[in-house]
Amino acid sequence: MAEFGLIDRIRARAAQVRDDVVLGIGDDAALLQPPPGMQLVVSMDTLNDGVHFPAGTGAALVGWKALAVNLSDLAAMGAEPAWCTLSLSLPDGDPAWVDGFLDGFLALAAQHRVALVGGDTTRGPLSVSVTVHGFVDPGRALRRDGARVGDAVWVSGGLGAAAAALAQWRGGGPIDPGLRERLDRPCPRVRLGRALAGVATACIDVSDGLLADLGHVCVASGVGVVLDVDALPGAGMLRTHFDADAVRRLQATGGDDYELCFTLPAGADAVALAAAGAAATGIEVTRIGTVVAGQGVRALDREGRPWRPDSAGHEHFA
Amino acid sequence: MAEFGLIDRIRARAAQVRDDVVLGIGDDAALLQPPPGMQLVVSMDTLNDGVHFPAGTGAALVGWKALAVNLSDLAAMGAEPAWCTLSLSLPDGDPAWVDGFLDGFLALAAQHRVALVGGDTTRGPLSVSVTVHGFVDPGRALRRDGARVGDAVWVSGGLGAAAAALAQWRGGGPIDPGLRERLDRPCPRVRLGRALAGVATACIDVSDGLLADLGHVCVASGVGVVLDVDALPGAGMLRTHFDADAVRRLQATGGDDYELCFTLPAGADAVALAAAGAAATGIEVTRIGTVVAGQGVRALDREGRPWRPDSAGHEHFA
Repeated sequence: MAEFGLIDRIRARAAQVRDDVVLGIGDDAALLQPPPGMQLVVSMDTLNDGVHFPAGTGAALVGWKALAVNLSDLAAMGAEPAWCTLSLSLPDGDPAWVDGFLDGFLALAAQHRVALVGGDTTRGPLSVSVTVHGFVDPGRALRRDGARVGDAVWVSGGLGAAAAALAQWRGGGPIDPGLRERLDRPCPRVRLGRALAGVATACIDVSDGLLADLGHVCVASGVGVVLDVDALPGAGMLRTHFDADAVRRLQATGGDDYELCFTLPAGADAVALAAAGAAATGIEVTRIGTVVAGQGVRALDREGRPWRPDSAGHEHFA
Repeated sequence: MAEFGLIDRIRARAAQVRDDVVLGIGDDAALLQPPPGMQLVVSMDTLNDGVHFPAGTGAALVGWKALAVNLSDLAAMGAEPAWCTLSLSLPDGDPAWVDGFLDGFLALAAQHRVALVGGDTTRGPLSVSVTVHGFVDPGRALRRDGARVGDAVWVSGGLGAAAAALAQWRGGGPIDPGLRERLDRPCPRVRLGRALAGVATACIDVSDGLLADLGHVCVASGVGVVLDVDALPGAGMLRTHFDADAVRRLQATGGDDYELCFTLPAGADAVALAAAGAAATGIEVTRIGTVVAGQGVRALDREGRPWRPDSAGHEHFA
């Protein structure tokens, strides 16, 4: 299958779902019409075979995840997704694999009304790069540098399930299907992110592990955080497979959760969340800590004793 | 070297050169302010080690080329470049390689006032994905679908030098430095493209080989082209190394030229080019054919005899 055949295949399935796409796949570049007065939010993430997903992962799951991790970045900025481009490197031009990939990719794109407008296909080791574009009102983007002393720290959904599935997979034993689903098919918190825009003081998505990601917020905002490791949501489904300390480690340092971790002004939590319509998104949010003067994340257990993980999050070149 | 160390290294060198970058490298996504009323032009291209450049190519040359091929796509749309994102997959996190890569990448970025605003670094086989963003006035973008019967076909600069260098490299003999330079350091025709916006009826950049790329214009525009293979510019520097037929083949089917091939309304050539200020760009342009009714590219030699290449351009999965 030649490159141009693959591109035609992709183009045929990339439905025109948006009026602001003047020219999609098929020219030297895409032509897009940004909405007047809005800021453009752009993120780009790559998944490599055997690094970001286990070799042999189903094509549809790779497609879903490649878009999900990018939409999660837009969610963490409070942006409304709009367009994406896709670069697929394939060891061969297997059309069945590409069809499967598009099944997953386009299913998630349709959920968020994202148009696939361009990119390329190349020969090379299996790798997927995606660039996503979204919009946000000026001044309302959720940044990492806005956390203030006294703010409460919150997180969406549950933490640790993806890392737990990966640990089971590496251990060679059976993988809990519920955990596996969270690893394979993360749900970017786009609606919650949009609800928090202009309300939360800082936000980040939990991709490298909570401690590492919260550490980025601390550095960018010039603050510290006291974290209650026993308050982290989602521990229940881990406890049937892991002991208490492993659960804490998976939740605090495991990556691939794609939940939103955000800060809210002190005292105004319930009011702020209600005003943001966050409750209407159907995603549970949990308070897990407090912003303090100083630097770095200090994790304490339920009894207030310092808790230290073996490692502080996932680094690709660590 | 950890991932975050690499990102800090890149961020430190990605100077803030544009007021429209609200937030660059260092958050979940970049925040950008598009100019009012303009259309956004987006392209994404990936270079893989050993596929798009010979294994062992110097880091600075990889960096230059990775941005050049993307800017060439913006040039082919008549767009003004503005922002880019970069995804680097590296087998290891060698900081010296990354520094060299940035030398080439940022030198070209500075020439065109392009800001590097985001992306990521991952572990994997050496691969570089770049997404570029530019602007164009509504209705003035150069598309592939506007060529009309009677239009003249033009090309910028010279053709075949990059393919000639690659042929010499594959042959194992010495490589002509002048040819090598064209392979290693293509110059995207950004100024010419902008001068042609709203003037040329169609445009494409010559990346896969002239016949293949002109074929795309024919399909998109629903026309045919009669091409004078002996009028192709740049043959002089090839003739010292290759016979007449090899020269034609290199020029008509060799890839990696990154020249612009465009069509102009019949009779208005000189007037149109002058009005566009194309002459002021300092890049020679040459008339090489005519748009006709029908389909496909018909190549003729100086005597009007049909000329056929061995293959019609480069396809990554051919």
